[in-house]
Amino acid sequence: MIERLETHVFETVAILGAGLIGSSIARACEASGAAKSVLIYDANEAVRERAKKIALGSICETVEEACTDADLVILCTPVGMIETAAKAASPFLKAGAILSDVGSVKASALNDMLAVAPSYAHVIAGHPIAGTEHSGPDAGFAKLFSGRWCILTPLEDQDEAYQLATAKLTKFWEAFGSTVEIMTAKRHDLVLAITSHLPHLIAYNICATAEDMEQVTEGEVVKFSAGGFRDFTRIAASDPTMWRDVFLNNKEAVLETLGRFTEDLAALQRAIRWSDGDQLFELFTRARSIRKSVIEAGQDTAAPNFGRRNQEDDTPAE
Amino acid sequence: MIERLETHVFETVAILGAGLIGSSIARACEASGAAKSVLIYDANEAVRERAKKIALGSICETVEEACTDADLVILCTPVGMIETAAKAASPFLKAGAILSDVGSVKASALNDMLAVAPSYAHVIAGHPIAGTEHSGPDAGFAKLFSGRWCILTPLEDQDEAYQLATAKLTKFWEAFGSTVEIMTAKRHDLVLAITSHLPHLIAYNICATAEDMEQVTEGEVVKFSAGGFRDFTRIAASDPTMWRDVFLNNKEAVLETLGRFTEDLAALQRAIRWSDGDQLFELFTRARSIRKSVIEAGQDTAAPNFGRRNQEDDTPAE
Repeated sequence: MIERLETHVFETVAILGAGLIGSSIARACEASGAAKSVLIYDANEAVRERAKKIALGSICETVEEACTDADLVILCTPVGMIETAAKAASPFLKAGAILSDVGSVKASALNDMLAVAPSYAHVIAGHPIAGTEHSGPDAGFAKLFSGRWCILTPLEDQDEAYQLATAKLTKFWEAFGSTVEIMTAKRHDLVLAITSHLPHLIAYNICATAEDMEQVTEGEVVKFSAGGFRDFTRIAASDPTMWRDVFLNNKEAVLETLGRFTEDLAALQRAIRWSDGDQLFELFTRARSIRKSVIEAGQDTAAPNFGRRNQEDDTPAE
Repeated sequence: MIERLETHVFETVAILGAGLIGSSIARACEASGAAKSVLIYDANEAVRERAKKIALGSICETVEEACTDADLVILCTPVGMIETAAKAASPFLKAGAILSDVGSVKASALNDMLAVAPSYAHVIAGHPIAGTEHSGPDAGFAKLFSGRWCILTPLEDQDEAYQLATAKLTKFWEAFGSTVEIMTAKRHDLVLAITSHLPHLIAYNICATAEDMEQVTEGEVVKFSAGGFRDFTRIAASDPTMWRDVFLNNKEAVLETLGRFTEDLAALQRAIRWSDGDQLFELFTRARSIRKSVIEAGQDTAAPNFGRRNQEDDTPAE
C-alpha cells in the first residue's frame, strides 16, 4: 500500500528514461505525493509520444527542460547509457540538486555520474530491487516498489549537505513503500551478482541450450515446459539491452560467481555420472532449506506455484 | 474444471504411494468419478495415518488388500522405488489389470515394471507433467492435472487387449482434465531432460553456490532474492528423494543435455570476459523469443510475476 504523504519530499523531480522503472517512479510519485512536480524526458521520441498518450505526466522535449528546476534528477536508463544521460543532464543541474540512478550495477554507474557531475550537485547511486519481465512505459505501475528493497550506495565521508541529501532520497523511496538499505557500490555489485545477475545469466543460457537441442523440437520444449523450464523462460524474458549492460559493467563479480557455479556444477555432474545418490540427496536437501529462509523473510509466498496458468484453479481446495 | 463422468472408467483403482501425486489422483478420482472405488496404500505408516486423518479415501493396511480387485494399479512412488513397489504389487494383479506409474523417468520405470509383472497384466508407464514444490498427502488437490499434459509410453506392437487398456488409461487421465500424449519411453526421457530435469539440476546448483559464497552472507542472499534468485529457490524446494532418483535413473540424457548447457555457458562466459556485447544481446533476444512461444502455447501467463508476494497488489493498475 502507498500512503499519501502530507508534505512532498521534493518540489521537482526529473525522470530521464520512461521505461518500466522510470514510468513506475512517475506513477509512484503521483500516488504518494513524494514530489510536487514530476518532469519526464526520454531520448526516444516514440517513447515520449507513448508516455504522453498514456498520460504518464509532464513529458519534456529536452533534457534541459526536465532538469533545470529539478531537486532530484533520476536516471532510469540501462546501465550502459548512464554516462550519456549523466553528461546530458549535468550542465542543467542546479546547486544542491541530487543526481541518482536506478541501475543494477552500482560501481560503474557511480563512476560514470561522478566523472561528469558538477561539484555543487550530490551524486547518490541507487537500485530498487523490483521489476517485472516487461519493459517500456506501459509496463510501469505505482506499486512496483511497495514492499521491496531499495539499495542506495552513497559516497563515504561526505559533508552534512550530502548526508541530508541522502536522507531525503531515502525518504523519497520510503514513500513508495520501499525499505532502504545502505551499502557500498562494490558490495552491492557482489551481492547482486549472486542474487540477480547469475540467475539471469543461467536462465538465458538454459533457454539457448533448449532452443539448440536439435534432437528435441522447439514444439516439444514449449509443450512440456511446465516441468520446470517455463520458470526460466520468464526470467529470460527481461530486457536484453538492460541485461547486456549489466554483464558488461559487472564483469568481475559476475565472472567470480559464475566460476563458483561452474565448479559446483562439475561436482554435481560427477555425482550423477558415478551414481552418488547420497551426495545428490544431501545437496538437494541443503538447497531446499534456503527456500524456507526466503519464505520466512517474506520474499516469496509458500503457495504452490507450478500451475500459474490457472492460479486460482490450482490452489489446493482446503 | 473437472466434469463429472456419467460412467466410471475403472471399477477399482489402487494407488500405491500417497504423496503429492498419489493423493491428487485420489482426489481427482473422487471429483471426476473416473473410478468407482479407490484403494490407497502407502509403505510408510505415518503417511497412511495422515491419509486417514484427512479422509483421503479407503486406506489399506497391505498391498494385497489394495491390489487384489484393482483394474488399475498406479505406482506413485519416487522413481527409485518403482521396482520395489512393482514387486510388491505383482503377485496380486488380476488378469487384464493395468500396472502403471507416474514417475519422471520412463525407460527405467518401464523396465522395472516389466521385469516383475505377470504376463496377464498390461504394463503402461505414464507421467503427468504436473506438480508443485510441496510433497506429502496434504499437498494433493483434485485440479492438479487439469489443463496439464500427461505422457503415456505404451509398448509398441501389442495385441488388441493392450491397445484397449491404453485407451482406457488415456480416458482415465482425460477425466482429470489432462491432455494425453503418446511417445516412446526413450523420447520422453530426452524431452524431459531438457524441459524439466536440467532446470531442476541448475536450480539446485545455484542454491548451493549461493549458500557457499562466503563473501556474501545467507542473510543478504535471502534479503535481495527478489532480484531473480527467489524463483530458483522455489524449483529447488521440490522433494530431494524424488529428484535424486530422477538423476540416477535418467543419467544418460541428463549428462548429454548438461554437457550442452555447460558448453553454451562457457561461450557466454567468454563473451562477458571479452566484452562482446553484440553476442550477449543476440543470445538474450533469442532466449526472449522462446518465452513468447511458451505463453502462446498456454503454458504460462504473460502477467508480470516478479512481485509474487503481493500478487494482486503488483498487478498494473490499467
